[in-house]
Amino acid sequence: MQTDLSAALDIGGTKIAGALVDADGRMVVRAARPTPADQDGATVMRAVAAVVRELAAGPDWVRVAAVGIGSAGPVDASAGTVSPVNIPGWRGFPLVAGVRELVGGRPVALVGDGVAMTAAEHWQGAARGHDNALCMVVSTGVGGGLVLNGRLHPGPTGNAGHIGHISVDLDGDPCPCGGRGCVERIASGPNIARRALANGWRPGPDGDASAAAVAAAAHAGDLVALRSFERAAQALAAGIAATATLVEIDIAVIGGGVAGAGEVLFAPLRTALREYATLSFVSQLTVVPAQMRTDAGVVGAAAVAAQQSRLDAFAPAR
Amino acid sequence: MQTDLSAALDIGGTKIAGALVDADGRMVVRAARPTPADQDGATVMRAVAAVVRELAAGPDWVRVAAVGIGSAGPVDASAGTVSPVNIPGWRGFPLVAGVRELVGGRPVALVGDGVAMTAAEHWQGAARGHDNALCMVVSTGVGGGLVLNGRLHPGPTGNAGHIGHISVDLDGDPCPCGGRGCVERIASGPNIARRALANGWRPGPDGDASAAAVAAAAHAGDLVALRSFERAAQALAAGIAATATLVEIDIAVIGGGVAGAGEVLFAPLRTALREYATLSFVSQLTVVPAQMRTDAGVVGAAAVAAQQSRLDAFAPAR
Repeated sequence: MQTDLSAALDIGGTKIAGALVDADGRMVVRAARPTPADQDGATVMRAVAAVVRELAAGPDWVRVAAVGIGSAGPVDASAGTVSPVNIPGWRGFPLVAGVRELVGGRPVALVGDGVAMTAAEHWQGAARGHDNALCMVVSTGVGGGLVLNGRLHPGPTGNAGHIGHISVDLDGDPCPCGGRGCVERIASGPNIARRALANGWRPGPDGDASAAAVAAAAHAGDLVALRSFERAAQALAAGIAATATLVEIDIAVIGGGVAGAGEVLFAPLRTALREYATLSFVSQLTVVPAQMRTDAGVVGAAAVAAQQSRLDAFAPAR
Repeated sequence: MQTDLSAALDIGGTKIAGALVDADGRMVVRAARPTPADQDGATVMRAVAAVVRELAAGPDWVRVAAVGIGSAGPVDASAGTVSPVNIPGWRGFPLVAGVRELVGGRPVALVGDGVAMTAAEHWQGAARGHDNALCMVVSTGVGGGLVLNGRLHPGPTGNAGHIGHISVDLDGDPCPCGGRGCVERIASGPNIARRALANGWRPGPDGDASAAAVAAAAHAGDLVALRSFERAAQALAAGIAATATLVEIDIAVIGGGVAGAGEVLFAPLRTALREYATLSFVSQLTVVPAQMRTDAGVVGAAAVAAQQSRLDAFAPAR
């Protein structure tokens, strides 16, 4: 029997999604459960087990070579544990060992969700064909991942590319992470909305004060709304330029709800990028919207599994 | 004949140094010439040729497998060209092709001087044994390089790790690079001295207004001098923390003249690092002084040559 499939799990605060994914990135089997995020750790793990059992119930399961997990962070790939901020029952939870027991000892690879999304964009999306790329999710938080030298760079603990918590304003506002002036503190959806409200923008009759509502106002020409997106774009540009200057990327891919604002975000972002990405070797850097949809996490986890599987296959020769 | 040596060139604005380096990092032959930095490009290249010919004149030359060059930047390793800021006669100068002609077609690898210094610290110095490291030079400018997954990460153009020109203060002072609030704009020696003078520090009777003089004043308890180093340390900490958060390094090595200030710099740097490196996966990050001396550039270039040579040897199997 050919082992030509990867099993993938995408674990978030609201949903646990799983799939068997083929070498072309197609999901041949899918399963999902709500995340019982307010329950104890064992209960959350039972939801994971239910997803895995559903995937394993069909005839395709024997074709699975390896398993990839993308999880809300922080994760610790070196220890095989996860401590997702929005799943309080899991703190240093041994997810890799738990999943390995469920999958008959197949190799299990773990990365953070930003790294998984990056793997998906590099495999099937906007970063395809780019050997050095930053992929980001700008949403309630700001996460990301890196492709370097043509390969995913998860880092030893699976958290690399965590651009949301680099400081671009060393004297700036305190961030919940404990730092100051982090990209997320300026550019996340809630911070875009907060800043617009603080500067006088008011929601419409429906009372929607989300970043999406600010984006709609910006598209309608509201100057305060536009300014709030410009400030977010400036912080993102400084962070993207810093990343390019540090590791030499030639493309930045931005997904997540805030990226859905379109040119209200991307136009000032391209302008600001020219101001911060100044050295000759980063001057060709481009920024584009993500292409993968809500399946990015699962598809990316499958890509991580496939990469792990190839590494294992090569291991005897190393 | 065993090809067990690397030839190395370290090209700076004041000196062109060369050596033949063995597998233990010992320089078995050395040569140097002043850089005729105010002359035309061909004249500068003749100085390089003189260094190479001196290295090639002895009996050990036949043992040379490959050649490594560390050059003042910017460099473009993909094009084989250099455009050092302080050597105006070289703009897009085809240094790799020129050196290759001089060395009988041996493979020639080019990296920026910050990357070369990093290779040296990883091979023989303070980053030895660390698979993920940032090495920096804090001096007239601020440069650096990265080790990722146990290997040097020069990036496609040989400039990766250029931490001096990431912005840690997105609304900050304009930097000569065209950006704003760059690490170098706050933490370089000249900026430490400038800030001390602007805040009321005055040089002693010898009129020495260098960063070294500010460091001496700081050691003697001068508060303005101490504050100027603290601000430099804050910017360095924000940049180092950003690097760790982006690529997962566990050690930062700092060399260069400003690092010679010792605890006046390192004590506030360690404190500030705790403020900016907040996520769990970077909380173990340490910062230490560099160990390599003035030979770091040459030894590092030799390390780059040796790595290139091994890659070439492996190439048929890839």
